[in-house]
Amino acid sequence: LSFENPVFGQFAFYSGIVICKTMAMSLLTSVTRMKNRAFANPEDYKLRGKPGDEGKPVTNATVERIRRCHLNDLENVIPFVLIGLLYVCTKPDPSTALMHFRAFTGLRIFHTFAYLIPLP
Amino acid sequence: LSFENPVFGQFAFYSGIVICKTMAMSLLTSVTRMKNRAFANPEDYKLRGKPGDEGKPVTNATVERIRRCHLNDLENVIPFVLIGLLYVCTKPDPSTALMHFRAFTGLRIFHTFAYLIPLP
Amino acid sequence: LSFENPVFGQFAFYSGIVICKTMAMSLLTSVTRMKNRAFANPEDYKLRGKPGDEGKPVTNATVERIRRCHLNDLENVIPFVLIGLLYVCTKPDPSTALMHFRAFTGLRIFHTFAYLIPLP
Repeated sequence: LSFENPVFGQFAFYSGIVICKTMAMSLLTSVTRMKNRAFANPEDYKLRGKPGDEGKPVTNATVERIRRCHLNDLENVIPFVLIGLLYVCTKPDPSTALMHFRAFTGLRIFHTFAYLIPLP
Repeated sequence: LSFENPVFGQFAFYSGIVICKTMAMSLLTSVTRMKNRAFANPEDYKLRGKPGDEGKPVTNATVERIRRCHLNDLENVIPFVLIGLLYVCTKPDPSTALMHFRAFTGLRIFHTFAYLIPLP
Repeated sequence: LSFENPVFGQFAFYSGIVICKTMAMSLLTSVTRMKNRAFANPEDYKLRGKPGDEGKPVTNATVERIRRCHLNDLENVIPFVLIGLLYVCTKPDPSTALMHFRAFTGLRIFHTFAYLIPLP
């Protein structure tokens, strides 16, 4: 486990991408909550909630979709990184390992777009 | 941190089991959603939702139970793997370490069955 | 990645703190569920739920707030530990690394208090 090992370097690169993608969902949730004025906490929706709904939390379909996508990332990306770390320790064939890392990263990014663009 | 270290090998084995168990909950959620036609996304419940409920998301008690169990796994299994990795680096006594890994793995599998089989 | 490396030792120390803080939320959820008799599972709320509400799950605002805080921890602490582990492998400057670990740990503890004490 050091950057002299090329497989570890590639693992670190692709893990970094998928972890950053997962954390970007937090930002997207925040922005969507602001835009739709749909807040989870009373102190937020009292001050800035939808006009006429000041007393109640507002559930917004887009916010909930992004949160489901974020949770799905947690359920899949974190196990990928942990299993990947153990996998790197088994001294795998570099090209096989790289193929797995690329496939997972590509499919995760595809999943995010596919999930967040609702079918008409 | 290499497979020449027997404690790391055992840690990798038991971590693999509990992470796979956690990921199996995703599959169980999918299958239960299909069987009960209880979907979270409009594009799914419009096409395949319960007859007469086409326009609304259906919340199913079994699906929600499996999702709570999955979240509970994330809350416990991931910290176990991360703390376990740091623990392996402290060069622990192999038999003590093995006992901890086995106890956690056994209890997690017991927890899943205990949680998913509702009391009558 | 061994305790001979001082950066790794510090990383392990601060990671341990934030992971334990995350896991403490489970305990807090349990205690708050008991105190408010607000349970998620039918087998729990049938036996010990609020008098007069025996048949229905009770959603408690404080329990939901703690659960949101716990999920927020999972979304932020786990990526910190994983990215941190990769960061330690890049042989960073010890004082810079220590500053980052301390800042994250301090801010996470501050976040928890700030989130759990609702504004009046």
